[in-house]
Parts: sequence; structure tokens; C-alpha cells
Amino acid sequence: MKKIEPFANTPKPPYYAVIFTSIKIEKDERYSAMSERMIELLKSQEGFLGFESAREELGITVSYWKDEESIQKWKANIEHQEAQKLGKKVWYRSYKIRERL
Amino acid sequence: MKKIEPFANTPKPPYYAVIFTSIKIEKDERYSAMSERMIELLKSQEGFLGFESAREELGITVSYWKDEESIQKWKANIEHQEAQKLGKKVWYRSYKIRERL
Repeated sequence: MKKIEPFANTPKPPYYAVIFTSIKIEKDERYSAMSERMIELLKSQEGFLGFESAREELGITVSYWKDEESIQKWKANIEHQEAQKLGKKVWYRSYKIRERL
Repeated sequence: MKKIEPFANTPKPPYYAVIFTSIKIEKDERYSAMSERMIELLKSQEGFLGFESAREELGITVSYWKDEESIQKWKANIEHQEAQKLGKKVWYRSYKIRERL
């Protein structure tokens, strides 16, 4: 029987975690739509292993990756970069990204 | 002027991140009290650098550490272990802990 849970199903180490923490200033429909699109896009990335997300005042999204190359590709993804720019301009008061092996 | 933000004030790498994700089944006063006490205790640990926390259905707490030894000491802390036992028994349906450098 499969246990259903929202945890990322990560393999045995080594793998990478990218910790994205943010403070949102605006909540709007565009944000929700963009957020959903980014998750969809994230899931299609090579080397992507899973993600976990929660938000109160602070939002935390941890994504897990097979290797650094996959992370670099995700960072370089044009649609992702556009979303980040918009995020900086419109939604986030502040954010921080950390990569850990 | 100091910028006030809820992000952990981590130094330049290397440092460690411990990612604790959990699904809570019960919300009660005892949980809040225990949670506050654990944060207090966490802050007093040697090698502790900061933490970030958010909860929706899934809860994520990321704590940051100077080295593995500090993490091991925190894991071995008796009061922390008691809290973990109670957590497993009473509050959490499920949880997962990951350590990344």
C-alpha cells in the first residue's frame, strides 16, 4: 500500500536542496497563477526530485535536485527568470536562496 | 540601518541546513508551548546559526548550523529527544528530517 504524503520523495544522498525563503507583500490572482505555472515547469525539469512548500508570513520552498547542473539549468530557464523578475518587482518584499548538497 | 527580516542570518558557506518537514494532526496549547520551548533551546545551542519556519498543511523548519558536531549535539539533547518522542506520539502524523551541507 502506498503511503500518501506531501513530502518530497528524495533518494539516498547525495542530492541537492535549494531553499527559497521569501516574504510576500502582495497576494493576488496573478501570483497564484504564476506559482502554479512555476510548479508545473519545475516538475518538468531534468534532475528535479521533488519539492516541499509552506507559507505563513515567511514562505519556504525547498526543491530537491539530482545534481548542480540541473540547478544551473533551472536557474537559466527563461520562463523561470521572467517569473523571478516579476516576483522581485511585484510580490516579494525580500527573498533568499540557498543551495546545499 | 539594520534591515529587519525573518530570514536566518547565515554566514558564507560552508554551513549545514537541517530541513524538518512535518504533518501535524493535532493543534493544541501544549504544542505551542513545546514549540516555543524548543525554539528557545535551539537558540542556545552551540553552533546554531539561525532558523526559518512556516506551516500550512505541511510544516517546514530549516535550521542552520556551523558544523555536523553541533547537529549531533542537538540531536542528542535530552529535552529535545523528549519533545521528539511526544511529537511522534501526539502531534505529527508524519515527519522527515534531512541534513545538507
